[in-house]
This record gives sequence, C-alpha cells and structure tokens, in this order.
Amino acid sequence: MPIVPLQEVKDVADRVLAAAGVPPDNAALQRDLLLDAEMRSIASHGLLRLPRLVERIGNGVANPVTKGRQEWTAPGFLKVDGEQGLGPVVAQAAIDALMDRSASQGVAVAAVANANHIGMLGFYADRVAEAGKCLIAFSTSEALVHPWGGRRAMIGTNPIAIGLPTGDGVFMMDTATSIVSMGEIHDHANRGAPIPQGWALDAAGNATTDAAAARDGAIAPFGGPKGYALGLAFELLLTALAGSAIGRNVKGTLDSTEPCTKADLFIVIDQPLAAVSDFLDLLRSEAPAEGFDNVRIPGERGRELRRRAVADGLNIADVTWSRLQDLAGTA
Amino acid sequence: MPIVPLQEVKDVADRVLAAAGVPPDNAALQRDLLLDAEMRSIASHGLLRLPRLVERIGNGVANPVTKGRQEWTAPGFLKVDGEQGLGPVVAQAAIDALMDRSASQGVAVAAVANANHIGMLGFYADRVAEAGKCLIAFSTSEALVHPWGGRRAMIGTNPIAIGLPTGDGVFMMDTATSIVSMGEIHDHANRGAPIPQGWALDAAGNATTDAAAARDGAIAPFGGPKGYALGLAFELLLTALAGSAIGRNVKGTLDSTEPCTKADLFIVIDQPLAAVSDFLDLLRSEAPAEGFDNVRIPGERGRELRRRAVADGLNIADVTWSRLQDLAGTA
Repeated sequence: MPIVPLQEVKDVADRVLAAAGVPPDNAALQRDLLLDAEMRSIASHGLLRLPRLVERIGNGVANPVTKGRQEWTAPGFLKVDGEQGLGPVVAQAAIDALMDRSASQGVAVAAVANANHIGMLGFYADRVAEAGKCLIAFSTSEALVHPWGGRRAMIGTNPIAIGLPTGDGVFMMDTATSIVSMGEIHDHANRGAPIPQGWALDAAGNATTDAAAARDGAIAPFGGPKGYALGLAFELLLTALAGSAIGRNVKGTLDSTEPCTKADLFIVIDQPLAAVSDFLDLLRSEAPAEGFDNVRIPGERGRELRRRAVADGLNIADVTWSRLQDLAGTA
Repeated sequence: MPIVPLQEVKDVADRVLAAAGVPPDNAALQRDLLLDAEMRSIASHGLLRLPRLVERIGNGVANPVTKGRQEWTAPGFLKVDGEQGLGPVVAQAAIDALMDRSASQGVAVAAVANANHIGMLGFYADRVAEAGKCLIAFSTSEALVHPWGGRRAMIGTNPIAIGLPTGDGVFMMDTATSIVSMGEIHDHANRGAPIPQGWALDAAGNATTDAAAARDGAIAPFGGPKGYALGLAFELLLTALAGSAIGRNVKGTLDSTEPCTKADLFIVIDQPLAAVSDFLDLLRSEAPAEGFDNVRIPGERGRELRRRAVADGLNIADVTWSRLQDLAGTA
C-alpha cells in the first residue's frame, strides 16, 4: 500500500469529480466524506466508492448538482427529496437546515429519500458535535442482513451514529446493525480466509464459514435477536417517515445502474448540555480485562488514525489509488 | 405459580398503591405499567417491583403525587424535573405533552431527570404507536454493564424502545443494551444454574459462568463492542441532556433508600407515515433457519402473551403474589 500525501489524494479525487461534472463545493463535500472514512481505515466507506459513483453519474442515477428539494412539513420536520443527488451533498444540506432550525426549535428532524449513499454516518455526527449540538443519524441500505431465525437477506445493515459535545471535545459512535460489513466478507473471500462462525449464511440459508459462499448469502445481525430488532426498527421507522423502499426493494448503494431508494434520518438537538468528559476520562483509566490493553472510547481510534494520516499521509490500497489516478488522468 | 384473574391482580395492586398514598389516576398508570410487563412474561419489570416502590414511598424517595415539573425550553424541547415522582406518572405526563406538541411541531423531545424507574419502555412505545405517532424512548440505569475490555460495571443497561404505526396495527421493539438483565442472572443464581460464557464477569473482573459470582460482578454489553458503543452513547446523550447522574453515580432504581438519579429521553414524531405492514407480513412468511420455527417480529410474542393473560388470567410468581396480598391486607 503506497503512502500518499493527503493533498495529492485530495487533488486526484477533485479531478475525478470535476471530470464527472460535479461542481466544486459538492465535490469537496463528497471527497471529504470518502477521505474521512479512508483516513479512519474504514476503506469500505472510503475512496473505493468513488469510481462507482462516477459510473452512477454517467448512468444518470446520480445527479452531481442538486442538493435535494427540502420541504418543512412542520416547524420541526424537514422532508427531503434527494432528487438522486450525491449522498453527502443532500445529507449535509439537510443537516445544515436542521442545525439552523434546532437553534430556535430545540430539535429538528429530517427524513431523506432518493439520495445516493451518504457514507459513514460518523462523519456527520462528528461535525454536528463540533458545532455544539447533538446528532442521531440513521440510514437504510440494500438487504444484506437476515432476520433472526431467517434464511435470506431481508434487512439493511442499517447503521446508527450518535454525536455530542462532551464539554471537552466530542463523542461519536457509529455502528451498523449487522455483525460485520459485506466489505469484510469480500475481504476474507479475496484472501481465501474463512469467516468466524455466526457471521453469515450461504445462499441456501445455512450457516457457513466459507467467505465466498457468504458473499451470495446473508450477514447476521449483531448481537442476535437484539440487533435484529434494532435493525428492523430502523428500517421500518425510516421507510415509514421517508416513504422510501424497504427490504429487498432497496437498490442503488452497491450497483451502478439503479436509482438509490434507501432512506436517511437525522435528529438534531440543540440544548444546553451537561459535561460528560470526566466520565470518559474515568472509562479510559479503567483496569483492562484479560486480553485487552485498555478500555477504548468509540470513535477515538478513528480520530487518532485520522490525525496520523494528516501528519504522515494516507495508506491507500494500490488498486484504489491506481484506479483513481486513471480516472483523474482522463480528465 | 397461581393463575389469577386479571381483575383480582388489579384490585390487589390498587389497594397496595392506595395504602401507600398514591392518588387513583397515578396508581392506575403505575399498576398498568407493571401489569403490562407481567402479562408479557417480563417479570423483572413486573409486579415484583411494587413492594420496593412502596418502601421507596415510605422512605420519602418516591413522591406518589407529583407528575413532575415540566418546562418547555424551546418549542420542541421539554425539560422535566421528575421531583422524585413515580416513573410512569412522570413519563406519561411528559409523553402526553410531547404528543400534543408534536401535532403542531412535527417532533418534540423530552429529557427527564429525577423520576423513579419508568419500567418497560415498550409500554410507552406501544401506546404512542396506537395513537398514530412514532416514539423513540431511552432510559439509563444503575451501572450494571462493563465497558468492552473493562472489568467493572460502569454503564447502565440503557434500553431503547421504538414504536410506530404500521398501517395495520403497531410495531414495537424494546431492548436493553446489556446481553441479559440482572434479573436473569439472579434467576440463574436462585436456581443454582450456571450462566452461558460471555454473559458476565465476577467481582474481580474475570469471566465467569457462576451466576452467584456474576451477581456481584458486571454484565456484558450485547453484541460486544457495538452494544458497548450504543449503551455508552445513550448514557452520555441522556446525561448531557437531562443533567442527571452518570455511571456508578446512578442510584435509586434497584434500592429502597436512594433518590433516583437516572435519566429518560423521549422523542415523539408526528408525520404522515407510509404503511410498512406488508413487509412485516413478508418477514412472517419467510422460511425459518435450522432450529427455528419461524421468523418472529419483535414485540409480537409479548402481545400474544398479554392477550392470553387477559383471557385466561395471569401467571404470577407465588412469592410476588403472596407479598402483594400481604401488602394489600394491611390496607
């Protein structure tokens, strides 16, 4: 894996996006989102997504210009038709509107349909927290997860992220309701490595440790029936509020040809907050259990990796970097 | 276990609450909450909690009269000082205010401090969904759960519940972020049964399958680091918004003498909703995996048990029933 100075990666990504007809401000946001995940070593939500996005723009299922059509259906509720816009462009425009509105309302919510993949939810949670507010963010996805006790993928990986100011910095957590990402299954398959028991079913709905077989099957919800209940609840709530597709009808976050039919939901709360940073300090100082070096705070490892990437450059997969350079070269 | 007609249980519970000085409308709500859990076979949140509540009223750490002091700090945000009121009385008063407010605002949020234990969150989620709105509810608790990689109980069991109308009934899920309840650990200990690996640590912070040792230790978060991240996020968010106690400083939901210092958070959304009941039908008709009879929808088993209790009477633990009858007899 080459280590590339951050500015060079940015420049290449910007050239790729400019060549695809993305206006500079929209391109900067899309690039920052993917780069943020890449810097945090969440490659599945990083720059490897850029070539597919360019294909989607070329195929007319991603609109590089629109920020979505926003309608306040009530003083605290924003309905957004993403008009097939770029995920982070539509999402950030909605969140900006919520941040503004929540200052007077205390809380404001947006339900978004028809936007492209909005990437790592933690990106938005971090930004809202840094602006002094709380964000609870949800998103649905293609059906990749089996219901507890079922055989087929019926439910999205349906992540949740929560960000808030702690009084001394920010806290951010971001997790899918699947036990693992499909990217990780693919990674195991590519390396010919088995996957742990309990991660996935094969295409016939039987438990498997064969990563290649799991690719065509279904991932388990995290934490068994509890994670299933959460992921299902998010899918139902987001679909009901956004009027989007559900289950196996959700398309357009993994392919290059289908309009994106998932939903996103953002809740921004703007209220005076008690400081909670002392409690995080206490957790950091806890004696670790056997086999652990320390008690970790969610989000902090990613933040540390991001600091290192800013200082030392980005560790990027060869195949991703060559592909981006190729795409930029055609500009 | 005796099977007791529902009306008889209600009468006994009402006599117990009346003797403790609880006004009839507050008593009805407190009784309905505990009875609802009891009917759903969630005994840990059922009538066994009533004797302790009576002790708490006697000790002056539960106020049987107040509905809490509500203050709208913004058009969409309600801050509630529970004034040590009964949990369901303060919670339902807050939710009633949110249901009213959300009709005009689209969304309304309440952060509650200083209320007693509000019981099973699903009780409220069901009621709000039946009224045609969505509820996301959270609560913190005494520190019973160890952080991922830690040795001591530092975090509450911090449940979340989500309720919404489906277009053909309601959906409700309710889950703690712990792998199991402390009640279940006690139940294993009482029966001299071992607990599964991964459920808990002993007082020294080492993994144990000895239920008695686990009682003095810490329960695991559900789903490992993901459940830890969720439970911690809820604890931070609720504490920051409600200005309540955090971690090991949370008291008063398991004892009879300490003022209750946990927090509750309710988000009510009132918007037109797309129907999602067809998707639930689809899930119910899915082929079950090996070892399963069918794919279950969260909340439905409890609803079925409740129907049966209404028709056939309540299956209540001897010890709980005798204790309630004793308490009612002193009235």
